[in-house]
Amino acid sequence: MANANGPMGEEGRSIPQTTNPMVTPLLTDLYQFTMAYAYWKAGKHLDRAVFDLFYRKNPFGGEYTVFGGLEECIRLIANFKLKEEEISFLRSVMPTCEDGFFDYLRAIDCSDVEVYAIPEGSVVFPKIPLMRIEGPVAVVQLLETPFVNLVNYASLVTTNAARHRFVAGKSKNLLEFGLRRAQGPDGGISASRYCYMGGFDSTSNVAAGRLFGIPLRGTHSHAFVSSYMGHDEIIGKALQSHDGSSTCEDFVSLVQAWLGKIQWTDSLRGVFGETNQSELAAFTSYALAFPNNFLTLVDTYDVMRSGVPNFCAVALALNDLGYKAVGIRLDSGDLAYLSIEARKFFQAIEKEFSVPSFGKMNITASNDLNEETIDALNKQGHEVDAFGIGTNLVTCYAQPALGCVFKLVEINNQPRIKLSEDVTKVSIPCKKRCYRLYGREGYPLVDIMTGGNEPPPKVGERILCRHPFNESKRAYVVPQRVEELLKCYWPGYSDKSREELPSLEKIRDRCMKHLSQMRPDHMRRLNPTPYKVSVSAKLYDFIHFLWLSEAPVGELQ
Amino acid sequence: MANANGPMGEEGRSIPQTTNPMVTPLLTDLYQFTMAYAYWKAGKHLDRAVFDLFYRKNPFGGEYTVFGGLEECIRLIANFKLKEEEISFLRSVMPTCEDGFFDYLRAIDCSDVEVYAIPEGSVVFPKIPLMRIEGPVAVVQLLETPFVNLVNYASLVTTNAARHRFVAGKSKNLLEFGLRRAQGPDGGISASRYCYMGGFDSTSNVAAGRLFGIPLRGTHSHAFVSSYMGHDEIIGKALQSHDGSSTCEDFVSLVQAWLGKIQWTDSLRGVFGETNQSELAAFTSYALAFPNNFLTLVDTYDVMRSGVPNFCAVALALNDLGYKAVGIRLDSGDLAYLSIEARKFFQAIEKEFSVPSFGKMNITASNDLNEETIDALNKQGHEVDAFGIGTNLVTCYAQPALGCVFKLVEINNQPRIKLSEDVTKVSIPCKKRCYRLYGREGYPLVDIMTGGNEPPPKVGERILCRHPFNESKRAYVVPQRVEELLKCYWPGYSDKSREELPSLEKIRDRCMKHLSQMRPDHMRRLNPTPYKVSVSAKLYDFIHFLWLSEAPVGELQ
Repeated sequence: MANANGPMGEEGRSIPQTTNPMVTPLLTDLYQFTMAYAYWKAGKHLDRAVFDLFYRKNPFGGEYTVFGGLEECIRLIANFKLKEEEISFLRSVMPTCEDGFFDYLRAIDCSDVEVYAIPEGSVVFPKIPLMRIEGPVAVVQLLETPFVNLVNYASLVTTNAARHRFVAGKSKNLLEFGLRRAQGPDGGISASRYCYMGGFDSTSNVAAGRLFGIPLRGTHSHAFVSSYMGHDEIIGKALQSHDGSSTCEDFVSLVQAWLGKIQWTDSLRGVFGETNQSELAAFTSYALAFPNNFLTLVDTYDVMRSGVPNFCAVALALNDLGYKAVGIRLDSGDLAYLSIEARKFFQAIEKEFSVPSFGKMNITASNDLNEETIDALNKQGHEVDAFGIGTNLVTCYAQPALGCVFKLVEINNQPRIKLSEDVTKVSIPCKKRCYRLYGREGYPLVDIMTGGNEPPPKVGERILCRHPFNESKRAYVVPQRVEELLKCYWPGYSDKSREELPSLEKIRDRCMKHLSQMRPDHMRRLNPTPYKVSVSAKLYDFIHFLWLSEAPVGELQ
Repeated sequence: MANANGPMGEEGRSIPQTTNPMVTPLLTDLYQFTMAYAYWKAGKHLDRAVFDLFYRKNPFGGEYTVFGGLEECIRLIANFKLKEEEISFLRSVMPTCEDGFFDYLRAIDCSDVEVYAIPEGSVVFPKIPLMRIEGPVAVVQLLETPFVNLVNYASLVTTNAARHRFVAGKSKNLLEFGLRRAQGPDGGISASRYCYMGGFDSTSNVAAGRLFGIPLRGTHSHAFVSSYMGHDEIIGKALQSHDGSSTCEDFVSLVQAWLGKIQWTDSLRGVFGETNQSELAAFTSYALAFPNNFLTLVDTYDVMRSGVPNFCAVALALNDLGYKAVGIRLDSGDLAYLSIEARKFFQAIEKEFSVPSFGKMNITASNDLNEETIDALNKQGHEVDAFGIGTNLVTCYAQPALGCVFKLVEINNQPRIKLSEDVTKVSIPCKKRCYRLYGREGYPLVDIMTGGNEPPPKVGERILCRHPFNESKRAYVVPQRVEELLKCYWPGYSDKSREELPSLEKIRDRCMKHLSQMRPDHMRRLNPTPYKVSVSAKLYDFIHFLWLSEAPVGELQ
């Protein structure tokens, strides 16, 4: 048997706590506990319920979402246990509840819960359950709020990162710089993790680098530049050459000599006059600290009149000692224009002083970037190699919330439906199975939901796919490949085997692969084609039968 | 002496850790550590620096902001210490740095840092420092990212809450329901805390209720309603009367009898026919669990044809036993219309069955509400008593980020400036003092920044207030009251006394008082009047002198 000890046994214990220790069973809405009491009081708390976690609309005007947050949900249930002091608190909040209820709460864990989910990092679509959670209704209800919380932002920001990667292109370096503007501390930490999952290359967030093994990047800020008054502040002026063979005793003078040479270069004459000397001191000092990793922010005073020439003077001095400077960062102004001007400057230096590949110096841009500004830069033409993106990425400025919901679809084997005057808000009843059907060209064609007992779609066999709520929208599909979407991540007392939780690196790979497999018209930024989400003919009929049987009949008079 | 043991002494130890244990000295950008190394390498790390934390533009199209997050910043520095494993991690990330630097990092704390701040919960304005942080440049630099992170979202969401309170009016009950849609777990927890600070009455978030003592509210969800199939599921049907004098053995039948009576009431004839019986079972069950706190969600099937009549049947049955039902919640549809129809229904019941104050039954509304929708409801007319607000409130959907920055304004007593082609991004140099000047009518008139050594503005004495960057904007003010804005919250080795950190309740009171003291035209939703922020004549001259001396001079050709 796959898990003889049950999920809270050996296997369960191997799943660590949630990343944020504030995620406990109390991180939920009060009504989950009041409902639990009402269930308990009615003797209904052990009723076997099936809930679907899904969303209704893709974010950012797009036609896809990347699913994130699954591992944190599994960590929560693997360690789900109310502490005595938490129970005391609940008792103080619900003073009219009977003692027996608190004994019941004291005893609950998630050993009798089953969780099925689409693998984290998958491209997903509206209405299809990202997760199906089965178990005693009172317990599963407690999971609603934390699960939705853990999935909503994770999926939203992963999707946002994937969209930024899409518009920036595969060749650009993408740096996540969002910590300071994120919605709270773990808004920042989660953002770093999920942006990496969605295709970013690195983060500035040290805590996230440590927690998740994400590559870290960072050099210096404007304050570093303006903290210097002049060269006389620099105490240790010596710098050993890269190969260790010699030492330059006065690197400061070498830099100044180079600045003079650049200033009198024919091809650069008139670009700049006197550069800011405190900036030059800051750059020199930074090079003395990080000669192998010299990248500076060049817009503290004036990019082309001061920052770029000062950078080049230091880079050329480093070059004399065998070090290769990394590049510059632009954090304000017209990034297209400035990157092109800086590139010309670097190329002129390469030519003038015969420094191979100096013209290819890395240019990072980082001022309030988002999908639109990167797209606009692409259209204008630019020379940016790397984008550092913060606010718009991590707060998902273009749409700061995803609307995942958690709906009861079956209880004690009875399918349930939630009606609404707004048809997009009607839930799809039944414990369902979900499949992705692939076409001849290898692209996913349609996702289909079927009743739990229907035979799965078969490769090469025609199947009718129906829109769940629009009678006339239906199509026959002959799948070339059929993928079952929901896998078992928490088997409860069932005999299913538990899917492993893959590493962040593997989830990121899955995400990159999934995104690249999608038909391009679903992915484009403007007017993307909706991906089709359907139900089987049998499930369609059942939805509409149940709808009629639950909706009260009106009376015309 | 106020703090003989220094800030890390007895006083310091009494300040608890940050609320989120993930807030550690590593929750910062890598460049803070690379800069620290460059400072250390240049022997500059102990240079005494002064940084201002401020923002440039009020959020949500408004003309004010409420300052939040101060206490968490103070908690961070009171306990600021790198752990050995954190140092090992940094060493692995910065492998070329000398050992001595890590010894230095191992030794640092914030005992030599001074923090001055405007009290948390104050109404604040752009450009005025919310906090001034002084100390060794390398240490203060490390604080930049966490401080900005801790203040940005806290201030943003407090302001958002205050704006929602403003539009809802003082008499409405405001419930924060945002946990599931918040940006991550502590997005949710912080939101609950800061929404309460900004004027909300309660939260649904149990963890936040426990951490901060915020009143908790919650009853049940749609799933609770749809989890019931019919009355036969209810096992314990007995309910004792409110005064304990008698017991109704079959409360289920009493409810059904009342439903029949309502159905045949003349004034309600035709409003509804057969109600949904599983909904009625759920309501009955909830009443059996919480007879003193009966509030139900009435839109699972149909508000007026099912939810409201079913609610009334249960409420009337409860009334027979001496219990007073609380009310209903509407979570979809036309809230203005439905609340008015529900109110009419309640009033008809009150009249028909002579149940005093049944017509005043509480109506809570909660579907995707925000400032605009509440304003629209107010204009249409509605009967809503309480608003439950989630997504738009906690994610600050209308503007999900505040742009607080942390700028160096002085180092070793030398004022510093950060220039920018965008004049709104030029920083105001110098260690400053900040005052709020009040007029005859008791309203704040203007905030003014002066140089550190200028005499403070005096009551009754005319002072010239200048726009920091616009030469022609200036005004004389004769203040009737002068309030110094920045108070000492962390004295470092100075002999200043430390302001106490007030309770959340006290901060909320300050916030409510501050908001009510503002001149109404600054607070209105549409086209509010900007509040004036100024500098003294002396500071004005100095800013522009420094600007000219730092900016490189162009060459026209």
